[in-house]
Amino acid sequence: MNQSHITPSAPINAWELVESRDAFRNRWLHVTLDTVRLPDGRTYEYTNVHREVAGVGIVGLNAAGEILLQQEYRHPVGQVVWQVPGGLTNPGEDLLVCAARELREESGYEAESLEYLGAFWDNPGLGNAISHLVLARNLRPVGGQHPDEAEIVSSHWVTLAWLKQAVADGTIKDRVVICALAYLWLHGLAG
Amino acid sequence: MNQSHITPSAPINAWELVESRDAFRNRWLHVTLDTVRLPDGRTYEYTNVHREVAGVGIVGLNAAGEILLQQEYRHPVGQVVWQVPGGLTNPGEDLLVCAARELREESGYEAESLEYLGAFWDNPGLGNAISHLVLARNLRPVGGQHPDEAEIVSSHWVTLAWLKQAVADGTIKDRVVICALAYLWLHGLAG
Repeated sequence: MNQSHITPSAPINAWELVESRDAFRNRWLHVTLDTVRLPDGRTYEYTNVHREVAGVGIVGLNAAGEILLQQEYRHPVGQVVWQVPGGLTNPGEDLLVCAARELREESGYEAESLEYLGAFWDNPGLGNAISHLVLARNLRPVGGQHPDEAEIVSSHWVTLAWLKQAVADGTIKDRVVICALAYLWLHGLAG
Repeated sequence: MNQSHITPSAPINAWELVESRDAFRNRWLHVTLDTVRLPDGRTYEYTNVHREVAGVGIVGLNAAGEILLQQEYRHPVGQVVWQVPGGLTNPGEDLLVCAARELREESGYEAESLEYLGAFWDNPGLGNAISHLVLARNLRPVGGQHPDEAEIVSSHWVTLAWLKQAVADGTIKDRVVICALAYLWLHGLAG
């Protein structure tokens, strides 16, 4: 680590959880109101969004090096958005097994090889949701799509140059795709 | 756009909102249960998380090209995380004005110039939260930190090489920082 130029006034300590109570819970969302004790002794009520399972996003490449993107209408933002295939792990499910399953279910493709790329939190100030990115090489069509209820998805192959431009000009705003682009670059796969 | 190799079976239509009712609301979180009509006529209950204001993340550089990172304990993930300065816009507030304010409040720095980099959604399948990244050049210390309640933050200057390594090895998992790295690269600012 680079030497810090700024000395923090005190070490950063963990907070103590005093009490947690459910505020809302259904199949999709679990919210608690947590009473926490800050390092200076004050108590504070923290609104905390829980997700028990990790998400997986698949960065699928074909033999030509094109990337598999999908378009899907997303009700919360009221528009059709560009994404990569992905979904939530089943409890205890291996990340690469989940990636292969979600890839087949959402796009009808199978990969020659799968490789872990990296992870990101959706918003660590609001909840614990974490997603992992998996690189899937040499995709070939095998059929067998089984989208979840309310999933209406179209698949598209795009070049890396198109993807970079689409992120740069705001056409793509999904954090999974933008993080995927960062990881492809960091792994030397994005020129 | 690259020609799609896969023809979607039907165009992707917007969903109709039939009814929306509040499920949870406080200062930090607003959840509704939305009854929506899908293109095939079925109705579906969608759990929707609303945020009225945009977030802003500041990618601050000093004259040496180092990047300003911060460490803060984040209760939802139970650990000290690496972040960039940032916060939420006030209603109607200009993004660059917000960026300058958050930068000063959280780090005590002022920028010589501010430049818009790009945007990302936290999770467009769950909510409408959007954040914008602003590049802040030639930071100089001016003091005047006014962190919000429960914000205990330390600031650090890191090199781009350190930042790239820290994302690649999983030390950094915050999507704001990872998206910032992608935008720096796309704007030709990350070598």
